Amino acid sequence: MKAARYYDRGDIRIENIDAPTVEPGTVGIDVAFCGICGTDLHEYLDGPIFVPPAGHPHPISGESAPVTLGHEMSGVVYEVGEGITDIAVGDHVVVEPYIIGDDVDSSENNNAYHLSPDMNFIGLAGRGGGLAEKIAVKRRWVHVIGNKIPLDEAALIEPLSVGYHAYKRSDGKAGDFALITGAGPIGLLTAAVLQAQGITVAISEPSELRRQKALETGVATHVFDPRESDVVAQVNGLTDGRGADIAFECTSVQPALDTLFAAVKPTGVIVVVSIWGHPGQLDMQQLVLKEIDLRGTIGYVNSHPAAIALVQEGKVNLKPFITAKIGLDDLIDKGFDTLINRNETAVKILVDPRV
Amino acid sequence: MKAARYYDRGDIRIENIDAPTVEPGTVGIDVAFCGICGTDLHEYLDGPIFVPPAGHPHPISGESAPVTLGHEMSGVVYEVGEGITDIAVGDHVVVEPYIIGDDVDSSENNNAYHLSPDMNFIGLAGRGGGLAEKIAVKRRWVHVIGNKIPLDEAALIEPLSVGYHAYKRSDGKAGDFALITGAGPIGLLTAAVLQAQGITVAISEPSELRRQKALETGVATHVFDPRESDVVAQVNGLTDGRGADIAFECTSVQPALDTLFAAVKPTGVIVVVSIWGHPGQLDMQQLVLKEIDLRGTIGYVNSHPAAIALVQEGKVNLKPFITAKIGLDDLIDKGFDTLINRNETAVKILVDPRV
Repeated sequence: MKAARYYDRGDIRIENIDAPTVEPGTVGIDVAFCGICGTDLHEYLDGPIFVPPAGHPHPISGESAPVTLGHEMSGVVYEVGEGITDIAVGDHVVVEPYIIGDDVDSSENNNAYHLSPDMNFIGLAGRGGGLAEKIAVKRRWVHVIGNKIPLDEAALIEPLSVGYHAYKRSDGKAGDFALITGAGPIGLLTAAVLQAQGITVAISEPSELRRQKALETGVATHVFDPRESDVVAQVNGLTDGRGADIAFECTSVQPALDTLFAAVKPTGVIVVVSIWGHPGQLDMQQLVLKEIDLRGTIGYVNSHPAAIALVQEGKVNLKPFITAKIGLDDLIDKGFDTLINRNETAVKILVDPRV
Repeated sequence: MKAARYYDRGDIRIENIDAPTVEPGTVGIDVAFCGICGTDLHEYLDGPIFVPPAGHPHPISGESAPVTLGHEMSGVVYEVGEGITDIAVGDHVVVEPYIIGDDVDSSENNNAYHLSPDMNFIGLAGRGGGLAEKIAVKRRWVHVIGNKIPLDEAALIEPLSVGYHAYKRSDGKAGDFALITGAGPIGLLTAAVLQAQGITVAISEPSELRRQKALETGVATHVFDPRESDVVAQVNGLTDGRGADIAFECTSVQPALDTLFAAVKPTGVIVVVSIWGHPGQLDMQQLVLKEIDLRGTIGYVNSHPAAIALVQEGKVNLKPFITAKIGLDDLIDKGFDTLINRNETAVKILVDPRV
């Protein structure tokens, strides 16, 4: 089968490899669509980061580069491994792409399985990937989505789950006012989750095209250009001078963090969703005198069922976030290069590995 | 009556001023003891900070320097103002020294009254102070303590309430492991509250005398010298490699914050109790990948009743934290100068304004 294989920084190859064996306890999936994630771009431009370099096998998967890429996937079950009785051939599914040690309780009783030692991701640290025709995944990480969600939209459930978990980390509730910095894919999908909860969403984003997208999709009711307007004053104006209840940092840029510190109300919660490659500078006096909570969030934990329900119930419409569909052979030229060079026009580019 | 009046940086005078009038709704208190707080020292060395400078009246109190200092006070009621029926002459009391706007709900229903606009403190921004023979305080901010708590120890209920609120901000619970950086008065009193909740306390503190105090008073079971031992390794060793559940930053020093980031477990909570005069540097990757919560805390809110109960029930013994008692005339020579120059030997110095 065809697969996109990550060898090293700047070296991703479309190759023919063996289809996976569907072992007992795993589910064989014909991949329908797989989104390209910012993490994939970072591996290509600056990696290997999550990918275990050749000769340094990951302690859980035992694999190292080359590995198959892709972790935002939807598909159709073509085979169920021995011992699985609650999934059938033909089921539409998405994957929660975790690689987690066998000694960790990864059941829904544990709300920290995603923070266990050496946690990594399918499609980055081994166990196949969504940028291939087929993948075999342990039952625990396969979520059935029913037939109401189109398979292209379903490929966005993984990043939507990132947004859902960020929302849960914020303790946000209906009626709150949220400020997000950054309207990239994760900023927009976090906004979609918040909006579905009855939270008013404002986004600060320098790109006009991205601001437009936030308004067109209806996930934000207010957008600000931080280079041209005083975001803190705008937020105060919209909240009777109170400030934002919750905030989400989705840029990894220092001025964005500074803006959120100034814009949240006393007791406000700021969730850091983006992965910073450098230290942050913190206004410790504001942290203390406003009793701000600054909270990190990574991935998702028991979030997929809730994210799937939001789409099934029509509370989140993922279609407008799909800006292109391409074949696997076009991964670099029409996928990565577009996201790297014409970043503002694209939100989510889906790859159909059968093409 | 005699009072310590703050005029400006380095200029505190012991003067004779008029005793306060006990207006309707206020309580007249004969001050028994008043502790010297780190905040008082900052005003003396680097201020005015909280004190409104001469000619710049505070928007709520309407007062500016000179003001009477002192906000950690205990005393005996000598007069009750019109309309007060639940406090009697002779009652032993402590003061929750807030200056809060009349338009703010400062009842126990509001858990954020301490974060209201222009909040300041009695004994810093007007309305009298504990470094005087008498003070008249609004009923809301007077807490009756009964006759079981000696009045000298009662003067420490104000900083104990700071520790109690910091504990509440941490969401700590019995069985948790807490790491505190800094064994100054607030670090020690926070430890006392945690220990009373059944939380295991370790303190990292470079001063040997302070480490000894933490062990002697029984508020910590483990102390580390961060210059000589690997605090993170020590904490991991004491927690089966898990890391600290909760942590408290009581130094305003960058290496302390770095230690706490490395020493807390995934999902760990770090409460910043100290007031930093400079920005902090933050390891954003650890914040995100460990899903750390970094939370500011200031003062107290509805904390005094619980802090008083801890002392009444014998769960916290405040006596060992009193290292000297002086008269008002000795405030600078034996009080401030000791705390500034021989900081390690003193924990809490109490002033008896009648002497």
